[in-house]
Amino acid sequence: MRTLLAALAALLWTVPAFAGSLKQDVDGWRLKNQATIITRLEELVRMPSVAANPKDLADTAAFLQAQLKARGFDTAQWGEAGAPPLVFGALRVPGARRTVVFYAHYDGQPVIPAQWRSDPFQPVMRASAVATDAIDWRAAPSIDPEWRLFGRAVADDKSSIAAFLSAFDALKALGRKPSVNIKVLWEGEEERGSPHLAAQLKAHQKELAGDLWLIGDAPVHQSRTPTLFFGARGGAGVEMTVYGPVRALHDGHYGNWVPNPAAMAANLIASLRDDDGNILIPGFYDDVTPPTPAERAAIASLPPVEDALKKEFEIGRSEGHEGLTASTMRPAMNIRGIRSGHVGPGGAGAIPVDAVVDVTFRLVPGQTAQHVRDEVEAFLTSKGWTIVHDDPDAATRTDHARVVRLDWHLGYPARRSDMTSPAARAASAAEAVAAGRPPVLLPMMGGGVPIYMFQDIFHVPVIGLPIANHDDDQHAPNENLRLQNLWDGVDVYAAMMSEMTW
Amino acid sequence: MRTLLAALAALLWTVPAFAGSLKQDVDGWRLKNQATIITRLEELVRMPSVAANPKDLADTAAFLQAQLKARGFDTAQWGEAGAPPLVFGALRVPGARRTVVFYAHYDGQPVIPAQWRSDPFQPVMRASAVATDAIDWRAAPSIDPEWRLFGRAVADDKSSIAAFLSAFDALKALGRKPSVNIKVLWEGEEERGSPHLAAQLKAHQKELAGDLWLIGDAPVHQSRTPTLFFGARGGAGVEMTVYGPVRALHDGHYGNWVPNPAAMAANLIASLRDDDGNILIPGFYDDVTPPTPAERAAIASLPPVEDALKKEFEIGRSEGHEGLTASTMRPAMNIRGIRSGHVGPGGAGAIPVDAVVDVTFRLVPGQTAQHVRDEVEAFLTSKGWTIVHDDPDAATRTDHARVVRLDWHLGYPARRSDMTSPAARAASAAEAVAAGRPPVLLPMMGGGVPIYMFQDIFHVPVIGLPIANHDDDQHAPNENLRLQNLWDGVDVYAAMMSEMTW
Repeated sequence: MRTLLAALAALLWTVPAFAGSLKQDVDGWRLKNQATIITRLEELVRMPSVAANPKDLADTAAFLQAQLKARGFDTAQWGEAGAPPLVFGALRVPGARRTVVFYAHYDGQPVIPAQWRSDPFQPVMRASAVATDAIDWRAAPSIDPEWRLFGRAVADDKSSIAAFLSAFDALKALGRKPSVNIKVLWEGEEERGSPHLAAQLKAHQKELAGDLWLIGDAPVHQSRTPTLFFGARGGAGVEMTVYGPVRALHDGHYGNWVPNPAAMAANLIASLRDDDGNILIPGFYDDVTPPTPAERAAIASLPPVEDALKKEFEIGRSEGHEGLTASTMRPAMNIRGIRSGHVGPGGAGAIPVDAVVDVTFRLVPGQTAQHVRDEVEAFLTSKGWTIVHDDPDAATRTDHARVVRLDWHLGYPARRSDMTSPAARAASAAEAVAAGRPPVLLPMMGGGVPIYMFQDIFHVPVIGLPIANHDDDQHAPNENLRLQNLWDGVDVYAAMMSEMTW
Repeated sequence: MRTLLAALAALLWTVPAFAGSLKQDVDGWRLKNQATIITRLEELVRMPSVAANPKDLADTAAFLQAQLKARGFDTAQWGEAGAPPLVFGALRVPGARRTVVFYAHYDGQPVIPAQWRSDPFQPVMRASAVATDAIDWRAAPSIDPEWRLFGRAVADDKSSIAAFLSAFDALKALGRKPSVNIKVLWEGEEERGSPHLAAQLKAHQKELAGDLWLIGDAPVHQSRTPTLFFGARGGAGVEMTVYGPVRALHDGHYGNWVPNPAAMAANLIASLRDDDGNILIPGFYDDVTPPTPAERAAIASLPPVEDALKKEFEIGRSEGHEGLTASTMRPAMNIRGIRSGHVGPGGAGAIPVDAVVDVTFRLVPGQTAQHVRDEVEAFLTSKGWTIVHDDPDAATRTDHARVVRLDWHLGYPARRSDMTSPAARAASAAEAVAAGRPPVLLPMMGGGVPIYMFQDIFHVPVIGLPIANHDDDQHAPNENLRLQNLWDGVDVYAAMMSEMTW
């Protein structure tokens, strides 16, 4: 079985005969142009493209459109008034039969500047993720690829845009003609959940027609190997509020008579999932589409990272007994937060009035958010819970033994592309060229990327093309990009434009 | 059985032949002196006697000592330099064979003024617990006993001191000689856990010698009936910190592989106690001293309050199926608070780094805090937890599957006095005189009062003499005293000084 899986895995990437030559050429060009590449990324980071500032987002969009225009693309900005525009570009390549659409997003997560080591919109180079000293990289005799550039969105997701532009420049400088027609779609509100994207995709279905979407987002595998991912989990969130007494009560006078909502919430959680992450709702896993042989083969051939990650994260076990990627092929129920009563000095000895639990379900193909909601609600009802969707009034609280308010955010479904489709094989082969070694081919990313949106509208393969380091603190303070990831990214984007044939 | 219990209960209180006459006299005096009584309590509330302000506490002590001196008591202040003084007073009554020591505390809980409807140290009269308008009670034609006076410590515990002083004045004005020698001990750091009390009790054992301690603290029964309590639960607290990854991790990329500390904490709690408040540690109840027949009889004869409390608290069930007092005869495990990750808008989708759970155990006679600690730790160890008492280092976290830090505060043991001792019968009879109806005799208060300290040092009966309303928001913002409780308190204290013989 192992041998069969390995053989299947081997099929998924093939280093073509000319392997190394593109990579060598692009690396050579990059070595001479590192300062330009970093400077362009710094310029992008200096534009504070966060949702709160529409003007900044519009400026970024204009800058990006100009970058594409300067490279010969037909360009446009799309979108509703007031929403950050989508930047579109198209470049027809004589003789190309296929069209690849490159998606990325130029907006970043909001920031709390006080939590940063330096201004999130003034890029700073440092020697490592935890270093505090700034490096004057322009004055340095050489640039260490382990250095990291800090700034909001530097990794997520402006690195993808910078790598695309530099790769395009490299091909041009090297006289390597793209092998496919190139389209670009850069979004400005991904970090807000892409509220207008689906409508715009539908409105511009003709302009966006292509044979493959490459979603330039997310981090590469923890082994730091160039990576493609062929799917992403979906999600559904629910905030659960369990009610105790209407006012906080002395836990001595009333403890073990008045129900304690924190203990009720704990029992509710424990009834839903065990300590190993198994979801205990009967039949919950019935909908799950099992991995294909190719997907299982891909997982089996992944470089092992689990021991290193346990050290890095300082954890003494994993949930379940499978590796990381095999685990994330299953749906997950995560607790993002719990709040009840008071913890720490200064607390009154009281039975809390409520307990709030923030839960996310990570979904896999076969599941729908609505069905998960139905299953959770039916299960809790069977356990004696009365479910409400608004603040319960006094009568509701008094008439029912266990009241829980559920506020759902239904999110989106998971999707996986066929890892063995001709387009998938072409992308895998190109990735191998770029990496100069076997790339990591992930059947599915654990985190959410709205692959479903592209797949369900365009019905062509949608593949994830991440370049950022996994330890980039995306969505957190001190977001950073490891330079080697940017260099690998330039290789990867160059290969995706010039080495793709199917 | 019911009949037997009722008969036993009937034995516990006996309204003497002269019932009514003391109450009538004291009520008559009180009606004429209401303004004086309220004014003195207001004066006490205006002294901000909270632990943070040693000067204020010293001023309050001096004021109280002067009050006792003016009434003919021998007085003293005791205590270590820097600690709020104990105020002591003694009054020898010619012909009295017995000595009763009246304990109360003059300090109050800390305040967060912004959470109050008005300055916590500027007493305000209002029509009800939730009313916002202030009543100019001096200008009112009559004083409604349902009105409430608001202010920090007005109920807990300055009401007891005010009632004692007014009752003494009433007896004097009425020419009713106390039937016992009277001693007073008023403490200034009860709300900080009485850190110096035991040492001072031992140091002044001779001065404090007596035949009965009456602990003037805590609320009366929810039926608003004058109440004595013959014991109190003890306590032990533990803050539990469950560890997840050393930094917050994307719950999509790592969810159901990296252990989730919030889910682990929920499972830990659920393993310790069920939804009905039953503690699941094998043998946990073995130490518990069962109630005596007299105690069971007393519980059986309590006025039912459960349905009214469920309405008041807006709860649809109780933990367990017994009444409130029967429930609180058992030990309890309460969750005072949980904190993990983030709840509400603006949260990152992350696996939290830890979960902190604030737990209190309410103990009953037969248990010790140390033994509870040992039982909890042995149980958690048996469930696979590695227990630490400090922040675990990286090696500890990485080498163990489940790490929990336990920070114990061992608190004090529970005690119950014999409800059928001669002193207990005398106090019960006097309480009946004061109430003019069957008083509530509680075998044990659910909340913590350090009865053990007095009992273990003096080896005489220790009985709780509460007067505050149960819905007084003690320890919370907008603490208030219902006036009828103060009036009842004056009756009760007068009876405890003048009607006690055994």
